[in-house]
Amino acid sequence: MKAFNDLADFSNEEILALIELAGRLDKHPEPEALKGKVLSLLFLSPSLRTLASFQAAMTRLGGGSFVISPEMSIHGLESRPGIVMDGAAAEHIREAVPVIASYGDAIGIRAFAERKSIEADMAETEFSSLIDLIDTPYINMESAMNHPCQNLADWKTMDDLSIPTNGGKFVLSWAYHPRALPLAVPASTLYMAAKRGMDVTVLRPDGFELPEAIMQKAKLAANASGGSVTETDDRDAAMQGADIIYAKSWSSTRYYGDKNGDQKLREEHLAWCVDEPWFANAKKDCRFMHCLPVRRGVVVADNILDGPRSIVIPEARNRMLAQMAILYQMLGGDS
Amino acid sequence: MKAFNDLADFSNEEILALIELAGRLDKHPEPEALKGKVLSLLFLSPSLRTLASFQAAMTRLGGGSFVISPEMSIHGLESRPGIVMDGAAAEHIREAVPVIASYGDAIGIRAFAERKSIEADMAETEFSSLIDLIDTPYINMESAMNHPCQNLADWKTMDDLSIPTNGGKFVLSWAYHPRALPLAVPASTLYMAAKRGMDVTVLRPDGFELPEAIMQKAKLAANASGGSVTETDDRDAAMQGADIIYAKSWSSTRYYGDKNGDQKLREEHLAWCVDEPWFANAKKDCRFMHCLPVRRGVVVADNILDGPRSIVIPEARNRMLAQMAILYQMLGGDS
Amino acid sequence: MKAFNDLADFSNEEILALIELAGRLDKHPEPEALKGKVLSLLFLSPSLRTLASFQAAMTRLGGGSFVISPEMSIHGLESRPGIVMDGAAAEHIREAVPVIASYGDAIGIRAFAERKSIEADMAETEFSSLIDLIDTPYINMESAMNHPCQNLADWKTMDDLSIPTNGGKFVLSWAYHPRALPLAVPASTLYMAAKRGMDVTVLRPDGFELPEAIMQKAKLAANASGGSVTETDDRDAAMQGADIIYAKSWSSTRYYGDKNGDQKLREEHLAWCVDEPWFANAKKDCRFMHCLPVRRGVVVADNILDGPRSIVIPEARNRMLAQMAILYQMLGGDS
Repeated sequence: MKAFNDLADFSNEEILALIELAGRLDKHPEPEALKGKVLSLLFLSPSLRTLASFQAAMTRLGGGSFVISPEMSIHGLESRPGIVMDGAAAEHIREAVPVIASYGDAIGIRAFAERKSIEADMAETEFSSLIDLIDTPYINMESAMNHPCQNLADWKTMDDLSIPTNGGKFVLSWAYHPRALPLAVPASTLYMAAKRGMDVTVLRPDGFELPEAIMQKAKLAANASGGSVTETDDRDAAMQGADIIYAKSWSSTRYYGDKNGDQKLREEHLAWCVDEPWFANAKKDCRFMHCLPVRRGVVVADNILDGPRSIVIPEARNRMLAQMAILYQMLGGDS
Repeated sequence: MKAFNDLADFSNEEILALIELAGRLDKHPEPEALKGKVLSLLFLSPSLRTLASFQAAMTRLGGGSFVISPEMSIHGLESRPGIVMDGAAAEHIREAVPVIASYGDAIGIRAFAERKSIEADMAETEFSSLIDLIDTPYINMESAMNHPCQNLADWKTMDDLSIPTNGGKFVLSWAYHPRALPLAVPASTLYMAAKRGMDVTVLRPDGFELPEAIMQKAKLAANASGGSVTETDDRDAAMQGADIIYAKSWSSTRYYGDKNGDQKLREEHLAWCVDEPWFANAKKDCRFMHCLPVRRGVVVADNILDGPRSIVIPEARNRMLAQMAILYQMLGGDS
Repeated sequence: MKAFNDLADFSNEEILALIELAGRLDKHPEPEALKGKVLSLLFLSPSLRTLASFQAAMTRLGGGSFVISPEMSIHGLESRPGIVMDGAAAEHIREAVPVIASYGDAIGIRAFAERKSIEADMAETEFSSLIDLIDTPYINMESAMNHPCQNLADWKTMDDLSIPTNGGKFVLSWAYHPRALPLAVPASTLYMAAKRGMDVTVLRPDGFELPEAIMQKAKLAANASGGSVTETDDRDAAMQGADIIYAKSWSSTRYYGDKNGDQKLREEHLAWCVDEPWFANAKKDCRFMHCLPVRRGVVVADNILDGPRSIVIPEARNRMLAQMAILYQMLGGDS
């Protein structure tokens, strides 16, 4: 495996093999599998779970990692091409990224969307510009439109609980949040659930539709796996018979890159905070998922997070296990 | 061992076994004992020795660790229960702590006293609220009233130098410091020396008495082990025949949580800076201990710290060794 | 090996043995060589490559490391001798450095020049004051006038490309940079190239001469190894037949410690940005080296850095390999 960048690069069989491997490494540790192997971790955007879970994953397999973020370079990293660097930044990503990559057997990179232009973010212009600088195997630790480690962990989380694939109903619901957040998690989660064969409904207010290309990509995956993809702003219809509600806030696509427009629109939807009444028509044991961090009392009510519906903690732990499987395959634990 | 939270949870025999193990691991390294094991390190309060010594300890035993502090989460961690999170903090400790714990085989947590209410701090309300969130084995890396890793290291340091247990005289002395510091070190050090069977004197100005419950806990331990506990503001009487002076500044308990009252009272005691004249009546080779960091020329004179009385460097090194023993027992190095 | 502080402390044979070892460890990993060994890393000055490459080096050899920088202590570290610490800093380097060293089998220390007095910096007053505090084996990770890990990596980089030793021409060129930078890299790079037996020319504007003692030290090394050392401000003469141009900006020695004087003088030399015309008289495949970080369009033109002349990425990777060899010898991988 030379890259773990997008669930779409893998067949369902390959994904299931990774999930099986993750479970095996949890039950039967292999603390010598990646002896002496190094994972470079480059965080151009902040992190807690990703930071902790990748470091823990490498240790559990007998290797190690190091962490670099822009503030570790003198006055930060420059990323603009062709610029005369006579300002604050003393180093350009064109040197920093290949150097950091050269110290590792693989590199994990996190770089959030710029959120100026939806086209640029859909094209993954920033993440691609970083990947173009390296030859090492790499892992996408969240880019503008992708978060494949989260997706693999989420898939495993549903498998662990025997949530049905075909016939299982997955509601990806927008939720209120005081700020405009990236599309990476909703876009790639939608794709994951569709590829898993589930009947997926995107529940969101007007103005928060996911981009057409994202919807199409998910629909193609659903067609291939026996699932379906629909969208609505009707909560009761969406939640009918749901096995899973996956809550996440995201930017308005109508006002993408327009902070004021987005803000004004989202303030109309303060009531989009997942709470028990949402589950009236859902399956009795409908579960609540979220990639974390989550704002209590804003995105979801305390009683849901603290109650039996919530599976956010095992979901987060599966980040580590999923990443162990990826690292094991990528760095030759098998050989 | 499911928790290392308070020396009071262990018999003297268990403590001596840990100290023996620490010495053995120093002389006869076991670099495969904790192969593939992970220690999560959560610092809600800053650290240098604890940070370094725990990371070094895990490496020496063949495992690894990762470090999380609140600034690694987006805009910090919220800790208030039941709050609507529409402010800066994007994550609550109710998610962050269990997630971080889930990536490790054990977790170390540091959370200083809030120092608003002496009752709340004595009840360890903050540390307990964190521990309640997890099932993993844990280590107290300093809480409101406890610093058991420091205590174990200090006990070992005195054993290393053959400082007498019964009959040995231990002076825990308040010292001046420009700021009001927590009670964790003095309270738990007093208990440690008493449990070790020493004759312990708490030397402090009026208004800096340790809480009655802390004194009582230490007296019970002294009774059981053949030691004694007294307190005084008379330096000459306290230092008579002393084997050890353990200096530490702490908050005024008379003005606990009252910054101005505390400040006014402590400014009267600028002269409480340990210096050679303090040792006039002490044993000739009376040693100076301090948990570090220490303010030179404020808490203690340079000539003491730089002279033969000071054992603060081996004392600090024993932090690592003591923690290796704890981790070895907790994470199954024995099995 | 008790210290790796200055290339001058090693014979050419010893250096070649380290380079051979570095190459061997790259081709034939020894992931158990330093099992359970700990490297303490103390960064009193910021770092990216050094930080990442030392952590990676220890992991590749089966050991580990921990990182301490002043901001991890409460309110930073005090370094002035004899001071009454009633200000912000809560800890003195006289305690912090020995404690940090005591947790490792070796310690790496980085402390840039103070750049107030050229005499003090030439005497390595700051770095020496730190080394005096410890007994552990240590590695100079860049001091006022030395950067021996960079030097060893650079030597290896030229060996890797079969750049001639005797008869090879090495141009160490000053370059423009908006700020006054330390002399550590130019001073120690000059020495390295001279010791390697090359014909070395220091190319710099008036006022940026390297100190006489630095020049003399390099000339002695050149005499012993069959090389030569000259200096000039004539670019065409300097570049005639060059195999290597090693660019680096540094402080004006005429105005050392005088910010305004330095600034005024350097602003006259904005044109000192390495570009293709510089190579008119050089060997056809003359290579470009730089220790990084480098300012694009200021120190060197983009087309040089992005073209075939640049070897800055393998040069940076050799930092890790060179340090692996040092650590292997220092921490007993041989035994």
